[in-house]
Amino acid sequence: MTDETLAERARDGDRRALARLLTEVENRTAAGEAALKTLYPLAGRAHLVGVTGAPGSGKSTMVAALTGEARKQGRPVAVIAIDPSSPITGGAILGDRIRMQIHATDDDVFIRSMASRGHSGGLAASTVAAAAVMDASGFGLIFIETVGTGQSEVEVAAIADTTVVVQSPEMGDEVQAIKAGLLEVADIVVVNKADRPGADRAAAQLRAMLTVGASADRAAVAAGRPRPKRPEVMLSSALTGKGVPELLAALDRRAPSPGSRLADDASLKRAEAQISGILAQRINARLHDPARAAARAETLKAVAAHEIDPFTAADRLLALLGNDSAG
Amino acid sequence: MTDETLAERARDGDRRALARLLTEVENRTAAGEAALKTLYPLAGRAHLVGVTGAPGSGKSTMVAALTGEARKQGRPVAVIAIDPSSPITGGAILGDRIRMQIHATDDDVFIRSMASRGHSGGLAASTVAAAAVMDASGFGLIFIETVGTGQSEVEVAAIADTTVVVQSPEMGDEVQAIKAGLLEVADIVVVNKADRPGADRAAAQLRAMLTVGASADRAAVAAGRPRPKRPEVMLSSALTGKGVPELLAALDRRAPSPGSRLADDASLKRAEAQISGILAQRINARLHDPARAAARAETLKAVAAHEIDPFTAADRLLALLGNDSAG
Repeated sequence: MTDETLAERARDGDRRALARLLTEVENRTAAGEAALKTLYPLAGRAHLVGVTGAPGSGKSTMVAALTGEARKQGRPVAVIAIDPSSPITGGAILGDRIRMQIHATDDDVFIRSMASRGHSGGLAASTVAAAAVMDASGFGLIFIETVGTGQSEVEVAAIADTTVVVQSPEMGDEVQAIKAGLLEVADIVVVNKADRPGADRAAAQLRAMLTVGASADRAAVAAGRPRPKRPEVMLSSALTGKGVPELLAALDRRAPSPGSRLADDASLKRAEAQISGILAQRINARLHDPARAAARAETLKAVAAHEIDPFTAADRLLALLGNDSAG
Repeated sequence: MTDETLAERARDGDRRALARLLTEVENRTAAGEAALKTLYPLAGRAHLVGVTGAPGSGKSTMVAALTGEARKQGRPVAVIAIDPSSPITGGAILGDRIRMQIHATDDDVFIRSMASRGHSGGLAASTVAAAAVMDASGFGLIFIETVGTGQSEVEVAAIADTTVVVQSPEMGDEVQAIKAGLLEVADIVVVNKADRPGADRAAAQLRAMLTVGASADRAAVAAGRPRPKRPEVMLSSALTGKGVPELLAALDRRAPSPGSRLADDASLKRAEAQISGILAQRINARLHDPARAAARAETLKAVAAHEIDPFTAADRLLALLGNDSAG
């Protein structure tokens, strides 16, 4: 099977072809590159929804519930689940995926786990590429679920059209702190586990916190930083289904219109993530080609031994790159 | 005060100069670059110890306890605390730093919080640069503490000489899964809160898990992946101090010898992180210079609108870079 037929078959609804294609794209093979070039013009229609939250907040259950709700409406749903992954064995490890198994036999629910590690050019670039392939294959709603905290959440928030932060009413100190960081990337904050005591109070506190943020806004603007978002706060229970239809409706209201893609922020950030990922990969490949690999290794060793500083080293490598990049 | 005197004063023990210098280095200013060039040849002596673990495991308390132990021996200690940070306001938010306040009046304990976001060229590059400045300023033991899970932990593990993973005996499902990912980067796993029930059992389980890993090793080697580490398992209580001297002694046994710096893995990874961070920054600066900025913006927009694919775009930018990089 040629790559073009793989891309064509994915586009025409062949899920096995889609799965194979995603592997090619994720591994950044030449076949994946060729297929992505073919499919890219067809993408740009889907609503990319990032779903994140601290560990234990119930993100996966929420994605499963939203998926179920969208399926009731007959809409195909794709999920990219970014797993805290084994950096060495390369395997994704979350048993959470099990919660999506109710959708396992449904051909219009496509789930892809992606390890958070080992993406040359960056996780954001790989995520955007995978989403573009799903988008071109007819999935109009794509959830990107990230576990844990830190850089990956923020990167995902930057590439998603809409970001949902899921939080549980009862959480410890450190998790609270993590949450505060996540709040700033949220378009919608969902207080999950609304069936538990404290959920209403947590939502009220959150709303109060966001309302009194006006002075923080002024400080941010005075310091030349962008004004923080004012996310919508919703209550939901992924377990009982309470509030799930409302959440999906809120998401749909935020779906970008077909014409808004030309220069909206998320689209530009996706473009930037992909391009800089590919650039980094191309430059790295050039530094590893036979003509340069030895000089590169020597430079690295000299820095490791503190014989030269890393700035001098970087400038040497840039000069090395320049040798044929003008050609 | 010139930058050189700032570097000199930091090197000679002026902590205020060190703090100012770290800000310059973190912001990647020209002054920071010049100072780092001056100090870099003096670095390469410190033992860089990464301390990580899932939220709530007690990492910060453990770093504070280890710091106290090292201070009893009269050794200066530096801590780089990487905080899950506000991507927008840029602030680090962890109240955890409070646990280090017992050391706040001690001039030989130097604590630096670093936001996990907003490092052009990457967090790893910024961390390595800060550690080099501390190293050159006479800190022989540098803890790099990361909160949460995901990419940043693994990056830090790669640049540290030795990585400690702290874990609590009682933890939920998702946190267990995160832990499994962290275990692979650990040189030492500390079961913290040894005063609580279940700690001995947790340590025993962990040892058993690591012992039966032989078949996983064979699978890894057969698949061409590196053999996972076999970390040492220790019991400790940062709160009561139990096991803390033993942990510090275990760390000291793993300190790299002065001569081993030439080509050991962590030193090479540190060099690579710094160089690729600087390269990315240099290339980005070139793409933003007046001669190229407009063409770059047009290319980004065309990709955002799905008019051209990101590979074609990256190749255009590479050609654009080539225009003067041979000079």
